[in-house]
Amino acid sequence: MSFLYKHLRIHQVFGANTDVGKTLLTSALIRASAAKERDVFYLKPVSTGPMQDADDEYVKRFAGSHKSRVRSKCLFRYGEPVSPHLAATLVRGEAAQSPVPTDHTFVNAIADYIRESAKLHSEPAHMYVETAGGVHSPTLSGSTQLDGYRPLFLPTILIGDSRLGGISATISSYESLALRGYIVDTILLFRDEYYRNWEYLQPYFADRGLKVVSLDAPPEKHSDPDTNFALTEKYYQQIVPASQEGGVFDALTHLDNCHANRLQELESMPRRTLDTIWWPFVQHGLVKSEKDVNVIDSASGDTFSVYNGKSKGDSTLLTSNGSSLLDSQFDGSASWWTQALGHAHPSLTLAAARAAGRYGHVMFPQGTHLPALKLAERLVSSGPGKGWASRAFFSDDGSTGMEVALKMALRAFAVRENGGMKEGQVIEKRRDLGILGLKGSYHGDTIGAMDACEEGVYTCEWHESKGYWLDPPTIGIRKGKVVITLPGAIAAEAGGDAEISPGTLSETYDVQTRLQTDLAQVYRGFIERTLQNLQLDGKRSLAALVLEPIVMGAGGMIFVDPLFQRVLVDVVRSSPVRGPQVSGPNWAGLPVIFDEVFVGLYRLGVESTSSILGVYPDISVNAKILTGGLVPLAVTMASDSIFQAFYSDRKADALLHGHSYTAYPVGCEVANETLELVEKLTTSEEWKESQSKWKVAEDQAAPAIWSLWDPRFVDTISRLPVVGEVMTLGTVLSIKIADDAGGYQSHSAQRILESIKEVTSVDGVSPVAGGASYSINYRTLGSVAYFMLSLNTSPALVRSVEDRIWKTLAAASR
Amino acid sequence: MSFLYKHLRIHQVFGANTDVGKTLLTSALIRASAAKERDVFYLKPVSTGPMQDADDEYVKRFAGSHKSRVRSKCLFRYGEPVSPHLAATLVRGEAAQSPVPTDHTFVNAIADYIRESAKLHSEPAHMYVETAGGVHSPTLSGSTQLDGYRPLFLPTILIGDSRLGGISATISSYESLALRGYIVDTILLFRDEYYRNWEYLQPYFADRGLKVVSLDAPPEKHSDPDTNFALTEKYYQQIVPASQEGGVFDALTHLDNCHANRLQELESMPRRTLDTIWWPFVQHGLVKSEKDVNVIDSASGDTFSVYNGKSKGDSTLLTSNGSSLLDSQFDGSASWWTQALGHAHPSLTLAAARAAGRYGHVMFPQGTHLPALKLAERLVSSGPGKGWASRAFFSDDGSTGMEVALKMALRAFAVRENGGMKEGQVIEKRRDLGILGLKGSYHGDTIGAMDACEEGVYTCEWHESKGYWLDPPTIGIRKGKVVITLPGAIAAEAGGDAEISPGTLSETYDVQTRLQTDLAQVYRGFIERTLQNLQLDGKRSLAALVLEPIVMGAGGMIFVDPLFQRVLVDVVRSSPVRGPQVSGPNWAGLPVIFDEVFVGLYRLGVESTSSILGVYPDISVNAKILTGGLVPLAVTMASDSIFQAFYSDRKADALLHGHSYTAYPVGCEVANETLELVEKLTTSEEWKESQSKWKVAEDQAAPAIWSLWDPRFVDTISRLPVVGEVMTLGTVLSIKIADDAGGYQSHSAQRILESIKEVTSVDGVSPVAGGASYSINYRTLGSVAYFMLSLNTSPALVRSVEDRIWKTLAAASR
Repeated sequence: MSFLYKHLRIHQVFGANTDVGKTLLTSALIRASAAKERDVFYLKPVSTGPMQDADDEYVKRFAGSHKSRVRSKCLFRYGEPVSPHLAATLVRGEAAQSPVPTDHTFVNAIADYIRESAKLHSEPAHMYVETAGGVHSPTLSGSTQLDGYRPLFLPTILIGDSRLGGISATISSYESLALRGYIVDTILLFRDEYYRNWEYLQPYFADRGLKVVSLDAPPEKHSDPDTNFALTEKYYQQIVPASQEGGVFDALTHLDNCHANRLQELESMPRRTLDTIWWPFVQHGLVKSEKDVNVIDSASGDTFSVYNGKSKGDSTLLTSNGSSLLDSQFDGSASWWTQALGHAHPSLTLAAARAAGRYGHVMFPQGTHLPALKLAERLVSSGPGKGWASRAFFSDDGSTGMEVALKMALRAFAVRENGGMKEGQVIEKRRDLGILGLKGSYHGDTIGAMDACEEGVYTCEWHESKGYWLDPPTIGIRKGKVVITLPGAIAAEAGGDAEISPGTLSETYDVQTRLQTDLAQVYRGFIERTLQNLQLDGKRSLAALVLEPIVMGAGGMIFVDPLFQRVLVDVVRSSPVRGPQVSGPNWAGLPVIFDEVFVGLYRLGVESTSSILGVYPDISVNAKILTGGLVPLAVTMASDSIFQAFYSDRKADALLHGHSYTAYPVGCEVANETLELVEKLTTSEEWKESQSKWKVAEDQAAPAIWSLWDPRFVDTISRLPVVGEVMTLGTVLSIKIADDAGGYQSHSAQRILESIKEVTSVDGVSPVAGGASYSINYRTLGSVAYFMLSLNTSPALVRSVEDRIWKTLAAASR
Repeated sequence: MSFLYKHLRIHQVFGANTDVGKTLLTSALIRASAAKERDVFYLKPVSTGPMQDADDEYVKRFAGSHKSRVRSKCLFRYGEPVSPHLAATLVRGEAAQSPVPTDHTFVNAIADYIRESAKLHSEPAHMYVETAGGVHSPTLSGSTQLDGYRPLFLPTILIGDSRLGGISATISSYESLALRGYIVDTILLFRDEYYRNWEYLQPYFADRGLKVVSLDAPPEKHSDPDTNFALTEKYYQQIVPASQEGGVFDALTHLDNCHANRLQELESMPRRTLDTIWWPFVQHGLVKSEKDVNVIDSASGDTFSVYNGKSKGDSTLLTSNGSSLLDSQFDGSASWWTQALGHAHPSLTLAAARAAGRYGHVMFPQGTHLPALKLAERLVSSGPGKGWASRAFFSDDGSTGMEVALKMALRAFAVRENGGMKEGQVIEKRRDLGILGLKGSYHGDTIGAMDACEEGVYTCEWHESKGYWLDPPTIGIRKGKVVITLPGAIAAEAGGDAEISPGTLSETYDVQTRLQTDLAQVYRGFIERTLQNLQLDGKRSLAALVLEPIVMGAGGMIFVDPLFQRVLVDVVRSSPVRGPQVSGPNWAGLPVIFDEVFVGLYRLGVESTSSILGVYPDISVNAKILTGGLVPLAVTMASDSIFQAFYSDRKADALLHGHSYTAYPVGCEVANETLELVEKLTTSEEWKESQSKWKVAEDQAAPAIWSLWDPRFVDTISRLPVVGEVMTLGTVLSIKIADDAGGYQSHSAQRILESIKEVTSVDGVSPVAGGASYSINYRTLGSVAYFMLSLNTSPALVRSVEDRIWKTLAAASR
């Protein structure tokens, strides 16, 4: 949780190294603030070493003599000038009785202090939060300062290093701050007249839009404390003169301006956004008010930090009721299904930086580079392509990835239908080819991908549905029971019951066992007859089977009976292969495309949905989680028999599709880092615990059917009157509102859950770092509301969100 | 230019700070290398300060006593321990007579030393290049070490800081190295038993795949040099023992392994790539040989560093002929038209890191964040949207940007044709709407964008040409003269001449003046009659005019007569507006889309082609240069009257298009940084000089028609027999081979320029940093070869490339 107050300007002070004058210059700022008749808060969360203690002592004495203005506070203190990683056992002082803080409790302690301080005054005030050591010095809990303080996202003053080597230390520290996205408002450093670092740093940072202020260096330390105090006092009077002029006051004015500009910018952003931005999937005629614009100032973990100045109204902005203008907001849609590891994960940032620094972008056709090659190998050999894929083709998003998949499948079909490709033979292009899919499918927004779906509200003027879509049986949990809902045509063949209870969730997804059931026979018969009828009257030849396995996301979080999809694949593959067989392991019947853009890479708790269905596709598409929720990238994988359809000695036979940034190193490197981090998660204690709740045995051979959501919570809300149906797998929770058939244009889910968007305080320790309260951002698809987690959302936060969903739905059920 | 030798392992040594033991530990490595019977090169390009000199002296004495094994060298020396930015005037020593080196000459001096050294031995050898100060200490030329050394891209040893604050300094330095993409092989630091930094750093970096080796700290310095020497000698014997065991030897083995692994990896990459990657636009049947795979190890400025082990054959790999396994390769297609500022520009890397660190990705619908908002405002208000656009819609690449543009135009037309949108009225979707364009157009690879083009080799099974395409007059330079080539139908109306000479290039692009010519009347008459005939027999209603203004890129670098495009826009807009007028400034006739994906943002020397044509579009698309050649991003801008076609109170009327990563902060922040850097370039001396060569006056009101290519060079090659036609604007040079009508499938351009792909040495100072020789990577479009620069390619490099093109074409002309 980040903080921003109109009346209280807060800055954290980071040092480019130890002993660069952090406390001294902070003290100078404090004096200047006090001289400007501001109330001043000086927070030194951790105090290390006797030297700093002396400075600190000085501040205290000064604070004592300016009692009305300056408050100082230390939360954790230890006396030896050792690295904090050694000091954890030495914690004493004001927090003597408390255990060594975790990152979470450390941040919370600071947050509490900030909140309390903000309430104390209504007059303009300044707060300086002084960190310990250099930017990357360890915190007591073992992370480094930069990462530890990150949830608070406070504007930063960097104290530069004026000594030999200090240019390097200052720039490097700045870059480490930048890698965490911190707003650095200014750099202060001493004017060492010998090394003259400021001479270099001033223009260097001016180029980067950053103000460097240099200040006279302090006198040498004197061994006698009182003399030292007197000398220091004299020095302060010199750099913080009664005239209120000079560097420190320049810096102070600059910091005040930065604060004012930030407030003004945040305040202006809603209007400017409404005036300039054309949002995707938003009817601007329905979003006219500034308070409807979600101004995201930063993000961390699973929460946004959002500006609330508009929703609170202008009146509260002008008064100082002591509440922050930034709220924590749980990112309940995982930022449109992309998030896997939380926002601004430092490892992903560094991966992006590493690839940008080594390559920038380099052109890919006929070229290669390590990030792309490693990613392709990983995906094909040990990722979702394992067991069937031979090639990886990169593009920019799920939609383009699906266009590539469609081009692959159509060509493979056309080549085989033409009797296999002969040398130099132009493959006749067949516009009347169509795909077989399921009603409710959605494969992306480009026109070709849309043509693989039925006409609907999403489709544009050029849309032409190219295929046939079967109405599938779906799965939901109602009143604690897993239910399969059969569409009319299938229900009639199954004996008339439109609803079937297949057992537990695990039993429902045990496709292998269910293949032996009567229902499987019903499905098979239905599909076979449907396909025969299509062949008789179809104006299009079906050329590919295109599925979103397990869940059709954008179509409304439709959980399809996996048995139906499995039987569908089996039937399609067992139909006679047209044209002659090409040698090698080949696709049979029709090429099968799995659109795993949404469902893949553990979004549903499994790496690939193939493990649930028990069959492999011939072509698959992954995106979204692929890059950990940082940058766009898609991969289309294909089996060798698909690849061979394009292989010849004629350029024109090649897959002539490619975007300029195809396989750009930044995207590929971020994906590699993501896959590595995700792999670690799969064996984490958190996952094991969730899995055991869903009764997944650790050594289970069958695919794990489990969820990060608690089974009791799911059971409970499925029994609420207002809820028609619930479903969950992996990170996804889908809630269908009862008695609503309004589809995409319905607002029932939006209406019933509306209050969950309000900021609500948390009892006990907040699950949001630095929290106390948070709101929930979520999205609906008509009558369906869904909530989506990252793969590493903390169990505490999930429990808290569950609690809030339950309370909201329960209230609506009354 | 980067270096890699099989027999010579090279590492650069960076320090986490000054005085961390860089020289001492490098000396230890040198001793260990010598003990392992390796020849050792110790290069200290710059030596600073007496303390380091003492160490350095020590190395020399040691080297002296191991003459057969160790060579040491210093290129620039100065004696005071001052910051290098102050030392530039103090340079003395071995380079006493030379001027202060620029980054370019500094790197070249090191490169020369490396090249010479590599030739000295054929036995396994090690080289250590010790940098000065900390990672970001300034070089003599004023940049910092990290940026200065970057073109050499040497694997790195980081000497960690073992003192208080050293954990922070070490991690920050590592992050600064990572931001430049350096390969860091190991971190060495002293085992300071009090601060015990290594205890923290070892697991920290192990998590990041990096080996940390800690070594006993050296004895305190002794004031007497000889005693000091004896103590140091004793210390060395302790950490580099005769047993060849312990940390230094562990490090040595690790470095050897890193070197071997890197060689092995590069050697294996072509095969692995051929086995796993499916390239865009490449016929894999024509690229079967490992040597045809361009292995890009890193990139810097306008050059790739590519592995040549395959092209040299295995035999040279195993012997040691002293040549590097990495070559410089000029990125002649600007990496598929994306590059604007050179590869791996540190400002763009930092921009990407900054946004990743602050936001990660955050969802955009109904939200806002600073990078996206600032970018939208900049583009709309002061960028290519200035004067006409009201909104920016973001997507992922040029193709998706064009799909969005088409959806906008089709809807706007449909709404107006339906008599303006009424509340709650469903707009009938009209599949028979088509677009008006030019033959040779190309708008991206997704199926919808392709449908806006004619059928051709690029189109897939589902392609359906939706529109009508006019055959346009084109511009080229033949034998020094600008020539407009008229298609037959227009030539007939113009009096029969198929070729017209309109004057100079500037006169040709002075559309305003040419509007008064007879040719303009001919164009107008031709277009009007064609459109009338289309209306009479057309099965499609034309709903939009879609143009790539000035140049149709992918279609074959076709420079269209801008007068024709201008008249086309005028005619289309003057035709009667269908349906009732909506209030406000409106599009007239048909919505006009400018596809500026390739031509925009100074690719052709002007920000937007509107300034040349003298008319604004209603919708435009930008991409490629938009993000400086780092990550994918596209923007579709629209006028308010287009936006209004989607504005209502019904969700279904909205533009229901969006990709998950829409307006992702990393992309937007990189774009903002790019636009800022490009703006600086527009007033640079380099640009002014180029413009003056093309006779563009500084205060000229008309749009600047100029090129970064030299007019005399263009003139000269246009006169060569093998050249049919040349054209240039901005960064683009297009060369059409004479007497070839083979189109996309022709290989004439490829064949004639083939030899330019060979590595060729450079006379005099190489224009490539650290160069001496380089090859040129370029692409052809059938009979057209093109070469493309960044916006900041150095004039020296352009001249050198020109020279090589000229020589190659001249040779082919003989």
